[in-house]
Amino acid sequence: MIQDTQYHPLNPDSLRQVLSDLPSLAIRLGGAPSDWNIREVSDGNLNSVWLVHGPSGSLCAKQSLPHVRVDPSWKMPLDRTTFEAGWLQAVAPLVPDMVPEFLHFDPQLFLLVTACLDDHVTFTEALAKGMDPAPVASQIGRFVAQTTFHTSWRGGPFENMARLEGFFSGNTTLTRITVDLVLTDPYHDHPRNHYHPALKPLVNQLHIDPAIHRSVCHMQSQFFTAREALLHGDLHSGSVMVDRNGASVIDGEFSCIGPIGFDCGMFVASLILASFAAPTEARRNQIRQAAPIFHQSFLKAYCDEWLHSDAKTDLAPAFLTRDDAAEIQRQQQEECDRITTDTAGFAAMEIIRRLTGYAHTSHFDNLPETEKGQKQYQALSFAIQLLSDLKTAPENLFPHGKTAL
Amino acid sequence: MIQDTQYHPLNPDSLRQVLSDLPSLAIRLGGAPSDWNIREVSDGNLNSVWLVHGPSGSLCAKQSLPHVRVDPSWKMPLDRTTFEAGWLQAVAPLVPDMVPEFLHFDPQLFLLVTACLDDHVTFTEALAKGMDPAPVASQIGRFVAQTTFHTSWRGGPFENMARLEGFFSGNTTLTRITVDLVLTDPYHDHPRNHYHPALKPLVNQLHIDPAIHRSVCHMQSQFFTAREALLHGDLHSGSVMVDRNGASVIDGEFSCIGPIGFDCGMFVASLILASFAAPTEARRNQIRQAAPIFHQSFLKAYCDEWLHSDAKTDLAPAFLTRDDAAEIQRQQQEECDRITTDTAGFAAMEIIRRLTGYAHTSHFDNLPETEKGQKQYQALSFAIQLLSDLKTAPENLFPHGKTAL
Repeated sequence: MIQDTQYHPLNPDSLRQVLSDLPSLAIRLGGAPSDWNIREVSDGNLNSVWLVHGPSGSLCAKQSLPHVRVDPSWKMPLDRTTFEAGWLQAVAPLVPDMVPEFLHFDPQLFLLVTACLDDHVTFTEALAKGMDPAPVASQIGRFVAQTTFHTSWRGGPFENMARLEGFFSGNTTLTRITVDLVLTDPYHDHPRNHYHPALKPLVNQLHIDPAIHRSVCHMQSQFFTAREALLHGDLHSGSVMVDRNGASVIDGEFSCIGPIGFDCGMFVASLILASFAAPTEARRNQIRQAAPIFHQSFLKAYCDEWLHSDAKTDLAPAFLTRDDAAEIQRQQQEECDRITTDTAGFAAMEIIRRLTGYAHTSHFDNLPETEKGQKQYQALSFAIQLLSDLKTAPENLFPHGKTAL
Repeated sequence: MIQDTQYHPLNPDSLRQVLSDLPSLAIRLGGAPSDWNIREVSDGNLNSVWLVHGPSGSLCAKQSLPHVRVDPSWKMPLDRTTFEAGWLQAVAPLVPDMVPEFLHFDPQLFLLVTACLDDHVTFTEALAKGMDPAPVASQIGRFVAQTTFHTSWRGGPFENMARLEGFFSGNTTLTRITVDLVLTDPYHDHPRNHYHPALKPLVNQLHIDPAIHRSVCHMQSQFFTAREALLHGDLHSGSVMVDRNGASVIDGEFSCIGPIGFDCGMFVASLILASFAAPTEARRNQIRQAAPIFHQSFLKAYCDEWLHSDAKTDLAPAFLTRDDAAEIQRQQQEECDRITTDTAGFAAMEIIRRLTGYAHTSHFDNLPETEKGQKQYQALSFAIQLLSDLKTAPENLFPHGKTAL
C-alpha cells in the first residue's frame, strides 16, 4: 500500500499494518496480526521503539522521528536508522552472536526491524542490580576487537574500508551530536549543560584549565583525523543488552569511521561511572576492576586477529609475514599503546559529559542528593585527572595494563 | 544527440562534434567547428588529452580510456576523470590562480574540459631547461597549504570534510595504483618493477632491510589512517605546468583523503630527483635548495591559514581563540613536525618507486647510460638513507627546516 512507503511516524496500529504486509515477518510472528502484542518501549533519547510478540515469535521495530524524541523542538533528519541498519549489516558477519539478528529495513519509513532480545536488560540495569561485570566486560572487549580490526585497513584490502567510509561519512547528523555534546560543550559555558551543584568548582576548572584544554584539542584532532575502523560510536552500558548467556550490542546509529579508542573509551567510561555510583566499597572495586578486564580482553583479541586473520590485506610484501614475530610485536605494541591513550582520553571526556553535559548517565539516579553529589564529584575528579595528563592517563586508568601483550 | 552521451573513446572528429553541441564551449572557441585545430597531446600514462584552438579561444579536453593508455591490456574503470573533475571543482575556489579553469564535465563520456594552458610547459621540462625552481617551489608550497588546510577539519565544520570523504573514498581505482606502485611493489620482487642495472645492490637492500621495512609499514599505516585533508595525490613535477607568470596544477585524478605529508613528499621527491640528475654541481645545489624553500613556504602558509582563517570550525570553545598564542604555536609545531616526518617518508618512497618501480621519472632520460646509473645510485642511496631512519629524515631532507615556525 502506497501510504505505508511514505514516511509517517508509526503507532501500534500502523506498525501492525506495515508488519502484516511483510510475509517473512508476519510468518515469524505467527497467527493473525490482531494476535500480535505491540508494546512501545522507547527509552533512548532519539527514536520510537516497539517490541512485537506473536504466537510464534517476536521482533523489535525502531523508527526515526523527525526530531529528538525527548525534545520535539530539536529537529533532526530521519536517516539515523539508515546508518544503524548499515552498521548492523556490516558487523553482523563479524560478531553474529553479539548483535541482534537483522530482519528488515524500510528506507522510506526509516524503520529497522531486528530480533527481539527477550529477557535481556541493559547492562546499566544489570550493574544496578549487582551483576558481576567481568564476563560482559571481557565479551565487549572481544566485540570491539572483532568489529574494529576487520573494518580497518589491516583486516582486508583498503577498498573494503573505502566502501564503509563512503557510506558512514554520510552520518553527519549524529556525528555532529558527538562532536558537540561529547567533544566540545562540556569545556565551555553552554545552555545545554547541567550538573549537580556540588560539581560547580570542577565545572569551572573544565572551562578554564589549560592542561585540560590542551588534551581536549588533541582528542578532537584524534576523533576527526584517525581513520582507523568502523565504530559503534555510542558504546555505553545502555547500548549493551545482557542476559545469562552474554551480551548483545544494539543502537549503532552513531556509527562512523574513527579512532578505535573511542569505542573502548565509551565502554570504559560506563564502568568507571557505575563503579563510582556503587553502594559499597567492595562493589565499587568489583566494577572498577572490570575496566582493565575489558581492556586486556580487547588487546588480546585485537592482536590475535592481527596475527591469525587470513584476510588478504594491503600488507603485501613478504616481509610482513608471521615469521617476523619480533617486528610484528613491536608494531602491535606501538598501535596498542596509541589505542590505549585514546581510550583513556575519550573515557575521561565521556565521564565528564555524562556528569556535566546534556545527556547524563543514569548510574547515580537512585542515590540521595548529597551522596549523589559526593560520588559524582569523585568520578568527575578522576576524569579530570586523566584528561589533565594524557601521558600518565593509561597507567591511572588501567594500572599495569599497558605491558600485557 | 544520443550517441554522444554514451561512452565511446573520442577521436578529433567526434570530439569536434561533442564540443560543437556545447554552446558555451563553441562560443569560447569561436568560428565554425571546422575552424578548430584539435591536437592530441596525451603523454601521461592513463588518458587521452587534446588541445583545441579556435579563432577566439582554446581549451583542453581529457577523456578516460577503459584501460591504461600505455598498456591496453591493463583494464581500468572510466571514473578517474570524475574524480579529477571533483578535485578541480573542490580546490578551484581555494587556489583560483593555481589551477586551470573548469569548463565542463560529461559524466557519460568521462570527458573533462578545462582552460588550455597555452605556452606552459611541465615543471619537469622547465627544470631540464635550467629554470630556477625556487619561485615555483615557493608557490606550490602555498598551493598545498591552501588546498589541504581548507579541506581539513581545521578549515571548516567537519561536515564539509565528510562530504569530500563520501565522494573521494570512491576513487579506489587510482588509490589502488598508489597503494601498489608507491607503497608496496618496490619493497619486494614484483614483475612490474624495473631499474638500471647499477641499482641492483640497492634494490636487493630494499627487499630485505628490516629498518626499511619498518618504515614502509609506518608510512603505509599513515597513508591509510590519516584522514587529514583532500590531497592531489600525484603532485610530481609533471603535474605542475609553468610559464613566466607562475605554476598551475593539473591532473588531480589521484585525489583522495589522506595525510598532508603525502602531497608534500611527492613534490619534494621530484625536486630531489631533478637535483641528482642535474648536469653540474651548481645546478644540483640550486634545485636541491628548492626543497626546503617549498617546505618553508608550505609551513608558513599552513600556519598563517590556521591563525587567520575566518572559517567557523569545530574548534568551538573560546579557549581556542587566537588569544592563546603560546598554546596555538605549540599545537602548530606538533602538527608541522608530524607533517614534516610524513613528507620525508613519502618523499623517500616516491624517489624509490620512480627509480625502481613501474613508472619511472624522466629527469634522468637524457643522460648517458653510465652517468645515469651513477646519478640514480646517488639518488636512491639518499632515499634509502631517509627511509632507514624516519627520526633523522626531516633534518637530512630539510637541514634546519623544522624549527622555522
